[in-house]
Amino acid sequence: MAGLLKRALRLRTALRCLCDYNMLSRSTATLSPVDFHSPFLTCSSEQVLASTRKLHAGADGSKVSPSAAPERLPFCRVTEEDLAFFRKILAGRTIVDPDLVEPSNVDWLKSVRGSSEVLLRPQTTEEVSQILSYCNSRNLAVNPQGGNTGLVGGSVPVYDEIILSTSLMNKILNFDSISGVLTCQAGCVLENLSFYLEERDYIMPLDLGAKGSCQIGGNVATNAGGLRLLRYGSLHGTVLGLELVLADGQVLDCLSTLRKDNTGYDLKQLFIGSEGTLGVITAVSILCPRKPKSVNVVFLGCETFEQLLKTFQLCKSMLGEILSAFEFLDSECMRLLNTHLKLPNPISDCPFYIVIETSGSDPTHDAQKLHNFLEEAMTSSLVSDGTVATEEAKIKALWSLRERVTEALTHDGFTYKYDISLPVERIYQLVTDMRKHLGNRAKSVVGYGHVGDGNLHLNVTSPSKDPALLAAIEPFVYEWTASCRGSISAEHGLGLKKRNYIYYSKQSQAVALMGNIKAMLDPKGILNPYKTLPDNLKQ
Amino acid sequence: MAGLLKRALRLRTALRCLCDYNMLSRSTATLSPVDFHSPFLTCSSEQVLASTRKLHAGADGSKVSPSAAPERLPFCRVTEEDLAFFRKILAGRTIVDPDLVEPSNVDWLKSVRGSSEVLLRPQTTEEVSQILSYCNSRNLAVNPQGGNTGLVGGSVPVYDEIILSTSLMNKILNFDSISGVLTCQAGCVLENLSFYLEERDYIMPLDLGAKGSCQIGGNVATNAGGLRLLRYGSLHGTVLGLELVLADGQVLDCLSTLRKDNTGYDLKQLFIGSEGTLGVITAVSILCPRKPKSVNVVFLGCETFEQLLKTFQLCKSMLGEILSAFEFLDSECMRLLNTHLKLPNPISDCPFYIVIETSGSDPTHDAQKLHNFLEEAMTSSLVSDGTVATEEAKIKALWSLRERVTEALTHDGFTYKYDISLPVERIYQLVTDMRKHLGNRAKSVVGYGHVGDGNLHLNVTSPSKDPALLAAIEPFVYEWTASCRGSISAEHGLGLKKRNYIYYSKQSQAVALMGNIKAMLDPKGILNPYKTLPDNLKQ
Repeated sequence: MAGLLKRALRLRTALRCLCDYNMLSRSTATLSPVDFHSPFLTCSSEQVLASTRKLHAGADGSKVSPSAAPERLPFCRVTEEDLAFFRKILAGRTIVDPDLVEPSNVDWLKSVRGSSEVLLRPQTTEEVSQILSYCNSRNLAVNPQGGNTGLVGGSVPVYDEIILSTSLMNKILNFDSISGVLTCQAGCVLENLSFYLEERDYIMPLDLGAKGSCQIGGNVATNAGGLRLLRYGSLHGTVLGLELVLADGQVLDCLSTLRKDNTGYDLKQLFIGSEGTLGVITAVSILCPRKPKSVNVVFLGCETFEQLLKTFQLCKSMLGEILSAFEFLDSECMRLLNTHLKLPNPISDCPFYIVIETSGSDPTHDAQKLHNFLEEAMTSSLVSDGTVATEEAKIKALWSLRERVTEALTHDGFTYKYDISLPVERIYQLVTDMRKHLGNRAKSVVGYGHVGDGNLHLNVTSPSKDPALLAAIEPFVYEWTASCRGSISAEHGLGLKKRNYIYYSKQSQAVALMGNIKAMLDPKGILNPYKTLPDNLKQ
Repeated sequence: MAGLLKRALRLRTALRCLCDYNMLSRSTATLSPVDFHSPFLTCSSEQVLASTRKLHAGADGSKVSPSAAPERLPFCRVTEEDLAFFRKILAGRTIVDPDLVEPSNVDWLKSVRGSSEVLLRPQTTEEVSQILSYCNSRNLAVNPQGGNTGLVGGSVPVYDEIILSTSLMNKILNFDSISGVLTCQAGCVLENLSFYLEERDYIMPLDLGAKGSCQIGGNVATNAGGLRLLRYGSLHGTVLGLELVLADGQVLDCLSTLRKDNTGYDLKQLFIGSEGTLGVITAVSILCPRKPKSVNVVFLGCETFEQLLKTFQLCKSMLGEILSAFEFLDSECMRLLNTHLKLPNPISDCPFYIVIETSGSDPTHDAQKLHNFLEEAMTSSLVSDGTVATEEAKIKALWSLRERVTEALTHDGFTYKYDISLPVERIYQLVTDMRKHLGNRAKSVVGYGHVGDGNLHLNVTSPSKDPALLAAIEPFVYEWTASCRGSISAEHGLGLKKRNYIYYSKQSQAVALMGNIKAMLDPKGILNPYKTLPDNLKQ
């Protein structure tokens, strides 16, 4: 208790990232040389198919998993005439060298690999328009690609789709320091935008582990969540405008910078989270909040998940407008942190741990609010122990306990990962039920995540890849989630890997309507094929 | 200065409504007996058309205004067999008595009037589904209606459309006190929801002048803005789920209560702000914020609009997370308040006045933040005078200065009203330019509105209706707005009256795409015809 109240709350100038995968540093994702070659240059398409399909094969070998790639659709293949056209409009930015194309063919988890032989790097919306107009007329499939940091195989080609990279579309177009509205090209890297804004006393309304690589266009296309969602809401609320190029090359200008505009249907909303299947985002305008002057962190322990939820309620009531993160991990996570990363538990052992962050405009007020909250939480026995960091190093150490769970899991064995959204009072029940369900078939079953958003990261480990274990987990986890009207993909999207699981979270009529929208906007289906929508809609 | 710093900030339990029309109390909108009769019962359809069209006629008499109703589309007319069907599924809730139908035929401004002869009052989603399925098969047009508080003629029939009222769909389905997610039927009155939530220490994320009558389904269908938008964002962010019935009677269940769900396209977004033209909203789930423990109000004067904008920036920086309203009115508004309503100016005369409201979780902290802000604003001469209310009555009096501008205008003469959204630094330039442009042709040209949202309410008065003045205002006001990429309808929507002005704010490709979406979801066009989309798309 004394330790808890020994408060020294320090200013942290930037919010930290709590994303599921942020502790796998980008360096570990650097692509190693691969022995895979473009079919166009060195092998038959059959070989390519076989090779690609192997990567997508189901865990049980012969039976094809719903995550596996479907058959290649009858798109045309890139010819020399096509390359000549691309070289004409993108001189020096039409990449066909297999070594240079390769990094864009493989996702950063190295879990899926395409066999594209062409990487296009436009700089302007007009160039994107020309590319798509041409590809649509030629029936060439296109894989729009931002920072290629997705986790569901949505950002790389499945077969030989042309890769359309937005990386060179990285200009900031405008920033209005009165309204806080930023307008920029889609290829701006999130972290660069953050740096730009912080110099102007603003921040981006979203923050992700992949911020050093991910691009704002990709963030919007995948409706990225991340830490700041609890405080600033989703991109459906903060994105004010989009410029898009449709499949036929038509430029759709919805690049408003207005907070209010009720003139007709809000078309841009349709493209937020559509994973590049409805159009290519070329520019974004987004409402940015002021940079907080004070950021504080506290680490607490709870005896039960019910107490943790009561603490969350108390926290919302007493910290109110300054609450910016409410994250949790269970004792199994702590055990893995202790065992594999030698991270000590800074408080006494508890079944549940909470990380709370506040962001506000007055350091004294924020510290006092936090103090009052902690006193009440301790007095009412909602939390059994806790600590507040006094130095930057200790602040980092506290955050590590939440951030490095993913890393600890990688040392525990082969990991089956699930990103589930549930009514907040149910989120831990899934972990408990999964433990009972799996018994001693699993090595570890751990739960952590964003309580404030009702977002659970459920992870199951085993000594090695285990098809029988996977069969015990799936579809159990999806059925359980569906029974609570939860989401089987809270923030990661569907991409290639989860497209066929959509029915667990969406009614069939809704999925059919999605198919109609896809058919209306992209009748030939050239944009990011095999992604987002289930296979049975495409046949 | 002494007056300014004599602070006694009082708790106000409910945020006030600052909407453009809120001071026209609902009692003044009570419909008087009308001499208009249903064509079905008493007059020919030609007579009806003539009568209806007269209400919609352009201000210049012979020339048809873009606001006027187009020709009736070839929908079928209601027969006795149809009524028999409706009576079978809605016993006692199929209204055909003209006196009872009449209030639903006229908007509350009494500016437009339809000639429907049937009012249906379903209680369940299943009933709505049966109604629409039947109407679609019979080619009968339907006018979905919530509280009928719209300002653009979107909520009443234009001709003989069947009125489908959601008024009896008024059940609260669930409230999750941990997450703050409310789920209810579409016909719940906003104020009733607010009362319900306040008892549970939460508030609705939106507040409108019409809250005593407007319904949440209508709020969502029109993407209502209102005061709390500055703080809690738009409905695109706060609405978590919708249940809808499509034109053919199909029930689209997107009634999620999750904050995060990235499984496919976010279909519900398409219906937010679509004014009942794409589907009928039958249930809503919405994320509700905690009720603030402290609400404060201050009234300030500025010498220039530039200083007002600087004050806004300072306010965002120093009040940060507790700022909940930043509203303005100009000296012309104050003159009208003095002249017509005998409301005295509580501070010295200034060209511009600001109303600031804060909402927070700690009264002492909020008061101190406000004090620091005021001191800085005075010291740096951004504001020249100001006052803070000490008693509830004075707080009300301060708010009246912003809220009663609309009422004062009604005493000044015939009023031409515009609801414009612009980049915030441009909002007052339109008022200045309009004054120059009109010279002495106008009696008064006044500007007020939501600075925080970039939303200007521009009003022009003349002693009486003046077609020449209107011709001088329009299309000038729309062209000016378009030149700044503003919105010609920030929060009121398009409905019937503004549908043909859509091109001032939306690119033709975007409008064409809206037309395609309408055609996809409602191929026969039975849902709220003549609204939202321009006539040239429908021909």
